[in-house]
Amino acid sequence: MSEKDAPADKPAGEFSRRDVIRGAVVGALGISSYAGAAQAVPSSSEDSVDLSRSHAFYGNAEQAGIRTPPQRYTFFMTFDLTTTQRTELQVLLARWSAAIAQLTKGQTIGQVEPVRDYGVGFDTGEALDLGPASLTVTVGLGLKVFTDTYGLAQHKPPLLRELKQLPSDAMKPELTGGDLSLQACADDPQVAYHAIRDLARIAKDTGAASTRWTVMGFGRASAGKGQSTPRNLLGYKDGTRNIMETADFEKFVWIKDGPAWQRYGSYQVVRKIQMHIENWDTDRVSNQNDVFGRHKVSGAPLSGVKEFDTPDFQKTGADGNLVIPATAHIALAAHENNNGLKILRRSYNYTDGINNVGLLDAGLLFISYQNDPAAFETLQTKLGASDGLNEYISHIGSGIFFVPPAPPVGSYIGGSLFV
Amino acid sequence: MSEKDAPADKPAGEFSRRDVIRGAVVGALGISSYAGAAQAVPSSSEDSVDLSRSHAFYGNAEQAGIRTPPQRYTFFMTFDLTTTQRTELQVLLARWSAAIAQLTKGQTIGQVEPVRDYGVGFDTGEALDLGPASLTVTVGLGLKVFTDTYGLAQHKPPLLRELKQLPSDAMKPELTGGDLSLQACADDPQVAYHAIRDLARIAKDTGAASTRWTVMGFGRASAGKGQSTPRNLLGYKDGTRNIMETADFEKFVWIKDGPAWQRYGSYQVVRKIQMHIENWDTDRVSNQNDVFGRHKVSGAPLSGVKEFDTPDFQKTGADGNLVIPATAHIALAAHENNNGLKILRRSYNYTDGINNVGLLDAGLLFISYQNDPAAFETLQTKLGASDGLNEYISHIGSGIFFVPPAPPVGSYIGGSLFV
Repeated sequence: MSEKDAPADKPAGEFSRRDVIRGAVVGALGISSYAGAAQAVPSSSEDSVDLSRSHAFYGNAEQAGIRTPPQRYTFFMTFDLTTTQRTELQVLLARWSAAIAQLTKGQTIGQVEPVRDYGVGFDTGEALDLGPASLTVTVGLGLKVFTDTYGLAQHKPPLLRELKQLPSDAMKPELTGGDLSLQACADDPQVAYHAIRDLARIAKDTGAASTRWTVMGFGRASAGKGQSTPRNLLGYKDGTRNIMETADFEKFVWIKDGPAWQRYGSYQVVRKIQMHIENWDTDRVSNQNDVFGRHKVSGAPLSGVKEFDTPDFQKTGADGNLVIPATAHIALAAHENNNGLKILRRSYNYTDGINNVGLLDAGLLFISYQNDPAAFETLQTKLGASDGLNEYISHIGSGIFFVPPAPPVGSYIGGSLFV
Repeated sequence: MSEKDAPADKPAGEFSRRDVIRGAVVGALGISSYAGAAQAVPSSSEDSVDLSRSHAFYGNAEQAGIRTPPQRYTFFMTFDLTTTQRTELQVLLARWSAAIAQLTKGQTIGQVEPVRDYGVGFDTGEALDLGPASLTVTVGLGLKVFTDTYGLAQHKPPLLRELKQLPSDAMKPELTGGDLSLQACADDPQVAYHAIRDLARIAKDTGAASTRWTVMGFGRASAGKGQSTPRNLLGYKDGTRNIMETADFEKFVWIKDGPAWQRYGSYQVVRKIQMHIENWDTDRVSNQNDVFGRHKVSGAPLSGVKEFDTPDFQKTGADGNLVIPATAHIALAAHENNNGLKILRRSYNYTDGINNVGLLDAGLLFISYQNDPAAFETLQTKLGASDGLNEYISHIGSGIFFVPPAPPVGSYIGGSLFV
């Protein structure tokens, strides 16, 4: 719409019938009146993803998929343990490890089409020819693993426990819990899905675990030279102030003390956060900016002009009010306002289509890593109590897992627990 | 597993506990025994997607998204008309057209963040900076459009009608029908989702239509130099014999006769096909090959050695039986066995996560284009009656739409119907 047809202070819902018909039905003039107000987006031919890139399963102290630059897609799945046998849990973790080591190289788990033509395929085959696509699969262990059932009670990571009830909780039982977790991330969703599917098949085959809940996530992460921050489905950049520096990983993410089996492990907190996007879309952008504390288009804090400007939480405007409201999301979550506390976030957008009242059903798969789950609870308690976002989101799924360090070459995830 | 540990004729489910523990728990030896049997996949650094590519909304006789080389992702959504006013339908189609023309250029639909800071955003913003990513949005019109309600009964495309009941039908009412359809395809799912979301928002804003059902699809389509055929979630290449040549488009896809408003239109048939992948995965690959009539890894017909070898449906083996069984999917669907009949298919994989009995819930979003819906019915009747795949699939969703030709520059989809 041009200024003449529809003043900028008139919300989209308030066009008159006549405006719209005149603007769009009469033809070329109508089309160009829309085009006139659009914000052009420069595109770059360098915005491409190299799908031959791979991340090794072995070789780092920590498991891949935490510090790894976020890939574009994820399938996250949790499992219930169905065995009471220590060896069956052991076999599952060992077979998962062997399979993950293959998958992250872009290889299949054994043969797709057996040479002698009368066998069942070891691999389901749908990711053949697709390359590694930066696949990582991160394995998490829930509370039930560390019980007398499996002779592992004495190895329970000291800070692993159920999360406490938080103010934003609206949990659906079928989207919570799990005794094991798999976070598969890749730059191709078919590669990530194939990994989760074939690992779920191994779980079924061993009889040790069954599927519990899952989320497929997407987003555009740090592609090309721009290294741009992906946007959530509320339209805002998400992750601008995420942990990047090694020192922060050492201080906030990795477990550094205790026995070897926990060092360079971490605690994984997973939340399925439903976003009421159709309500959000009726809100004025100035209000949305106040809710986040950032400008929607640039991602700059309201106190600044560029995305990575450090927010000034003390700055006041001509009216004497704080430029970034004290209840803005970035103010509540900032390390400056939480005794320096930081957590690592790996978030992906999801959609579940249309809900039973015809509204778009979508949100955020939030996965955080920290060396103490209390860090998440501290931040979420604060956000849940006064965050302006609460009107637009519900935490409907949740899980907490200990992510052990990477195994030494030739061993398997969690292997040192069984020694 | 090496030949020594697990003979190739032993299905994956039949490893002994001892095999597995010995193979994977003892360490390096175990891992390499898995690796030994894996099929290495060469990866290519040329396997990348240029996300700055765009497809024009105007300029071709037909709408984009039919002949356009398949993009990697789709969001397909249908809508129910909620208005009885001709002008409201007209406004919706005009506003959709104007918006689609912007979106396919990688631009927003009006401003994300209004200059004067107290308005509602015209565009929800989550695709800012993502480029056009080859976005196309194809608009379809259902039977209800062509009724006296809108003064369009006399323009009903002559072959538009409900599909007849087919042998493979297991329809869920909430996944069927719709009066309008949008097929958004792009090389980035966030770009495709953004398009559908903002077009659904326009529908709501006009009061003319409400959301009905939707499927998000993914796949790896013809990337890089390899132009490889994507695989479905049964692990098989899907689309090897699809329509490619202009002459076939002219003969089978485009409507060529009648008034101008239908020429270079087409009929769109949409099926949500659930695949029982966990059952499939327990089948021997030799049986799977017989079901498709192709080799799983190479995609070659069982009568040949390379993917694009022409199938020989008469060839017999040493035992006197047909090499490609008469009931194989490619035999039943082949134009050679259907009086030359062909349809254009644009299929994508989907997953709905885990079903209520803990099984992976996934399948194929099948969209075909043809100048007579009877072509689809003819092929599907044959497939539904004797296709070996029927044990593993259920058609749970369905829709049929007339896709009008592209509008002339400055007009809108379906515009000539209202003259």
